[in-house]
Formats: sequence, structure tokens, C-alpha cells
Amino acid sequence: MLYGIFSYDTSTPRVGFKHKDYVLDLEVVALLGYFDSLAVDPVVFTKPVLNEFIALGRPTHQAIKQRLRELLDNEASTLADVHDQVFIHASRVRMHLPVRIGDYTDFYAGIHHAEHVGRMFRPTSDPLLPNYKRLPVAYHGRASSIVVSGTPVRRPSGQFLDGDQVTFSPTKALDFELELGLIIGKSSALGEPIFIDKAEEYIFGVTLFNDWSARDIQRWEYQPLGPFLGKNFASSLSAWVLPFDELEPFRVAGMPQEPAPLPYLQSSQPGHFDLDLSVWLQPADGDDVCIARSNARYLYWSFAQMIAHHTINGCNLNIGDVLATGTISGPDPGSYGSLLEISWNGERPLHVSHSVARTFLADGDTVTLRGRGFRHGFLADLGDVTGTIQS
Amino acid sequence: MLYGIFSYDTSTPRVGFKHKDYVLDLEVVALLGYFDSLAVDPVVFTKPVLNEFIALGRPTHQAIKQRLRELLDNEASTLADVHDQVFIHASRVRMHLPVRIGDYTDFYAGIHHAEHVGRMFRPTSDPLLPNYKRLPVAYHGRASSIVVSGTPVRRPSGQFLDGDQVTFSPTKALDFELELGLIIGKSSALGEPIFIDKAEEYIFGVTLFNDWSARDIQRWEYQPLGPFLGKNFASSLSAWVLPFDELEPFRVAGMPQEPAPLPYLQSSQPGHFDLDLSVWLQPADGDDVCIARSNARYLYWSFAQMIAHHTINGCNLNIGDVLATGTISGPDPGSYGSLLEISWNGERPLHVSHSVARTFLADGDTVTLRGRGFRHGFLADLGDVTGTIQS
Repeated sequence: MLYGIFSYDTSTPRVGFKHKDYVLDLEVVALLGYFDSLAVDPVVFTKPVLNEFIALGRPTHQAIKQRLRELLDNEASTLADVHDQVFIHASRVRMHLPVRIGDYTDFYAGIHHAEHVGRMFRPTSDPLLPNYKRLPVAYHGRASSIVVSGTPVRRPSGQFLDGDQVTFSPTKALDFELELGLIIGKSSALGEPIFIDKAEEYIFGVTLFNDWSARDIQRWEYQPLGPFLGKNFASSLSAWVLPFDELEPFRVAGMPQEPAPLPYLQSSQPGHFDLDLSVWLQPADGDDVCIARSNARYLYWSFAQMIAHHTINGCNLNIGDVLATGTISGPDPGSYGSLLEISWNGERPLHVSHSVARTFLADGDTVTLRGRGFRHGFLADLGDVTGTIQS
Repeated sequence: MLYGIFSYDTSTPRVGFKHKDYVLDLEVVALLGYFDSLAVDPVVFTKPVLNEFIALGRPTHQAIKQRLRELLDNEASTLADVHDQVFIHASRVRMHLPVRIGDYTDFYAGIHHAEHVGRMFRPTSDPLLPNYKRLPVAYHGRASSIVVSGTPVRRPSGQFLDGDQVTFSPTKALDFELELGLIIGKSSALGEPIFIDKAEEYIFGVTLFNDWSARDIQRWEYQPLGPFLGKNFASSLSAWVLPFDELEPFRVAGMPQEPAPLPYLQSSQPGHFDLDLSVWLQPADGDDVCIARSNARYLYWSFAQMIAHHTINGCNLNIGDVLATGTISGPDPGSYGSLLEISWNGERPLHVSHSVARTFLADGDTVTLRGRGFRHGFLADLGDVTGTIQS
């Protein structure tokens, strides 16, 4: 069950539903009368972003999903006559950024990532800062430079320290970050917190998210106000969004939270998800190699906690906003979600193949993030996210 | 010369031009034929934000300005017959947020503010961090919670340290910040830096900007990724925008920049502006008192340097984006642009009147930022920005 925005031939961008090697054109499905029982205006499927579709709300999304299941389970009988009208083969399709993003927030909820970074850059003190287990640390990122999966990423230039010399050059420490991105599904009012037991109602769906980072630029600029040019040159979002209720079979308890968080961050139900995540690196003239396997369970803070915290001061969320989790690393080598960690800040090159080693990304490298749930017989694929580095 | 978005009676929000105690309804002016020589579609004046008007570009804005000057200088002869159709008295008008803001960036370009904060929180080391004079430090802020001048601001609640105890309460350290906000006037492409000598072409206009801050929340949360909930509950923007070319008479050289910045931050012309700025505080049952006088000359980095730096890594800007300067404090007491500095982190209460003292803001306080240029016989008022604290 994945929704996205696609175009084909001379069509305008529109809402599509992924089905095997095809994309189902939902406007055509609606115009042919297959959604007549749902009272959904077909015009929402003709928009170039999912925002209006998202605004229909979860009950309508569930009715559409139910109807699509009926149609697709009996595809031979129900859609055979109109197959060529409603199914567009993936090879003919161009994908677009799925949402109009108002604001983008990036959390730091992957505790192993935070510990690794702390050990690297503050080796003599506690790797986690005192606030880490008290609140989900986050910062605002750049919405305008979020691009859809498949968009090439230019190596940014910038100012950084080379030894103790201030220098200007293309970054020498280009990195990926393995993250999940939540797409906000309901707007909240300025001044009104979203309480934690309502928080998941505000999630439309989940994507993979690559928060590309230039570590040298980031390190020199980030004190005292946080990351800026080391991040805002590009972030990549899946073309396909998995509706949040598809995650239900994969719900699990997170790791114990000690000290107990303040009441506004305490939830009455488990809020973590067992989703396998992986990072794949393909050099320009090499094979696509899996370089990391992680899991969404390694997040310290749940999605609901992130939303409750984000809005506790009255900050408002809007449909289409993106909340990313921060890098999701596991505790062990092989599960690290960034090259910063894999190469331990450049000290230990990663051997991608017998002839290729990396500390950070090289021009021509393609990074792909993949994710899926597989539990109790249920399977759900996240939309993957890929990007190739250009000079 | 100020543009804004207003409505009156049952009208929809639309583009207005401030003239003495009136707002000129530019759609009506256009429909009456007064802009016929300009080839401007009157529909741009009927939009609820300035973005489409801004997109007309500076040559068209200058032609409109020229035409308005002709009409208003000869008001008695040109507009007398239609006065009641085109002029709406300010008392009948409601103002709206002037732009649809894509992204909002807050710089830290006020060097005295940065020095004061450094002296307060890092008393034993150099008040300015090593990167301060090398690059215009900045972070991304929240666009969704930017409100128009006059909107009440709710005191946010949040998590902070009370002594060494983690606590949750309404903030006890609510502050304002005296800033200027630039409204971006031209979009740039992702991956393409804006070079410094072209940078001012990307500014549509200038506003006053109050970056409300909860210092206790900010202090506990901001390591290592910067401000988040301490800022994103609200920021206030002028209702009226001063077009950038109106600043020309006030252009001055900034302070010397030592060490010399890297070439991408070196401009061929002076890029600072002599604009008087002031902060006014009115308690619920008291007079409106000026508590600070500062000047835009106290910015270390110029507007052009901010834009050149922001985009040097290829980050794109869009029409309607807001770039705020950071708090503009002067060197001397009386010129400090935040209560954090005025009360020196709460140690020295400000005596607003004989019966009222403040370390931080109280419920019912109204803060107003005002600004004007006055130089060589030229006068230009910035649109002021005001907000009242609610519990």
C-alpha cells in the first residue's frame, strides 16, 4: 500500500497507487466509477502533491484502501477490461516529490548514533548530553531543498577547517544518513499542543529519508546554533509513502526509558515499530552493496513522543510537514546508519568491494536506503530512496 | 512606501499600499485604469499574500511605485473623484501575514548580541566563538508559527532546568528579540549559489521581526543541534514591507571585518544600512516606554553576505522566504535588543516605570519594535511589529 505522485507521457503529475510493476492512476479509477460508493471528488487525484488527498482524513483513506483491495484482489474480473487505462507500467512513469512540505524537522532520536557521535567528538565525557534522555532533541531543517528519490545530489562547496586553516572547497566529507520521515496528516492550531495519546492520528504516512550531510562544513559552522549549510544543500525523500496504519502489525515496545520521561512524553501504548532498514552503496562502476542493516526499533524516542514534544509549546504542524527521525544506527558495526560512524570519522575506511574503499562518498556513488516490515506473516515495503552524487 | 495584505468589511485579503492614515486598494486602482500604462494584471492585487506581486520583479515594482508617486503627489486632481473607492481608512482595516513563507532562516549577525551572550554563558573564554567572524552563523527556524504584527503571543510551556531539576511549566524567561526580516524577492535554483554582487537583487523588502524566545526552554534543549521549542512557538513579522530600494539613501559601510572574509563573502560595495531601531514595552496597565534604541549598522554581516553564504552550498531560496538578521544590539546599555541582555540574564531588573520592573516578560506586556531611516533629508519608516503576551 504505497501512494505517490507520478506522471507519464504528457500527463500532469497526479496521485498514484503502487501495484506490483504498475502504478494505478487513481483519477482514472475514480472517473470510471470504481470509487462511486466513497463520495470522493476525483479532483483530489489530479493534484501535483498528496496534500489534498491527505486532507481527506484517515477514515476516507481506509475506505479507499478497502475498495482498492477489493478491486486488486479480483483484478482479473474487476479491472481486466480497463487494464490499459488504469495501470501504467513503472517503466513509463516519472515520480515527483509526494508532498508540498511546509516545514521540515529533523530529530536526533537514534540513540546509538548520538552515542557514537558523542564518543567521536567528546571522547573524555559522557557520550550522551544531559538532555538526551529527557527530551527528543531536534532542529528545523530546510524544506526547499528536499528532493524526491532519484534526484542527483551535487557535492556542495563550503567553508571549513583544514587543519587549523579556514578553507573553501567542495566538501571532502560527504555523507548519507539513514532516517525515517513522517508525513504529517492533520494540521494543528498554533498554541494547541497535541497530546501524546492523540499524536499518531497526526501521521499520514512513513517514508525513508536520506539527510545528506557535509561533515566538514557542519563541524565548522554548527556552534552555537546547530547544523545549517552542512545539511541544507539536499535531503532525499521516498517517492512512495506508506500509510501509517500499515505499520500496525510491526508495533513493538521501544527500549526502556530511564529516567522516566515527564508525563507529557508518557504514552499508554507501545509506540515503536520493527522495521528492517538497510543502506546500499553502488560506486559508479561497481555493484550495489549492502553496507549497513539497522532497524527502526533503535530509535530511543517514539513517533508519538516526537510529535507531543514538538507541539508542547504550541508550535503548530501542517499537512505535508516532514518530521525525520535522525540517523537510525544499531549498536554494532554493520548497523551504523552513516559513513561518519562506519568509517569512524574517516579513520577506518569501509571496504565496499575488493577494489573500492570509502571513508566518505565519492562522485558517482549511488546511495539507496531500503526498508520493510516482516512480522507475524505481515509484510510491508517502505518506498526506497536513492540518489547519486554529482561533482 | 509600504506594501501589505489587508482586508476590510467583507472583502477578501488583498494587496494594499500604505498612505498616511489610509490603505490604498491596489486592485481598485488598477480596475479604474490608473495602471493601464503598466501592463500589470490586476489579479495579482487580489491575492491573499504578496508572493505573486513580488514575482512581478523589481522593474515592474519600480514602475508601479513611480505611478503611485504621480497619483499621490497630485492626489487632489487625480484621485479626488474616486477617493472613497480607493482609500480605506486604517481604522477599518485588518492586516494579514504579508507573505506565504516557504522557509525561514535566522542569522546571528548582531555582533554585540553574540558577544553579550558569550560573556554571560562562557565567562571564562573568548565571548565570540572561532567561526563568528569567518561566516554568518545561522539556523533554520519554524515558518508555520510566524504571525503578523498584532497577533497575541501565548506564553509557551515546556521542559527546562530549575536549578538541577528537570521541570515542566510555563516559561519563566519569555523574551523578545529585535531583528530585521528580509523578504526574498526572487527564487534561485537548487545547486546554484547566488554570488555576493547579485545578492541584493534577491531581496524584495525589509520588515521588523520579533523572534520571541523562551530562554529557559532554549538553554536546556539547544545542545547539540540548536534552538527549537525555545523559539518556534511564535515569531512576529511586520504587516507592512518596505521595498528594498527604499533603503538606498541609508546605505553605509559596515564595521571593519577582520580577519577578511573568504572571497565569496567579499562585496564590491557597502552593504549596511543606517536604520534607527527601537523597542517599546507597555505593561498591561502602563505607558508604552522605549526600553532600547539600536541601529542596523550594528550588524557584523551585511544582507548580501547572508544571502551569499546561505546559498554557497547550492541551497535554494524562494520568493517569500524570510531571512532574519538575529538580535541587533548596540555596544552600550540602552541599546540592547533583548531582555536577556538588558537584565543580564535576570540579574539586573529593568525599571520600566517607577512601579514596574522586568527581568523577562510578564503576561499582558505588549512589545513593539519600530524602525526608521533618516539621513540626508530622506525618511523611511519600517512597518512596526507588535505583540501582547497572553497566559
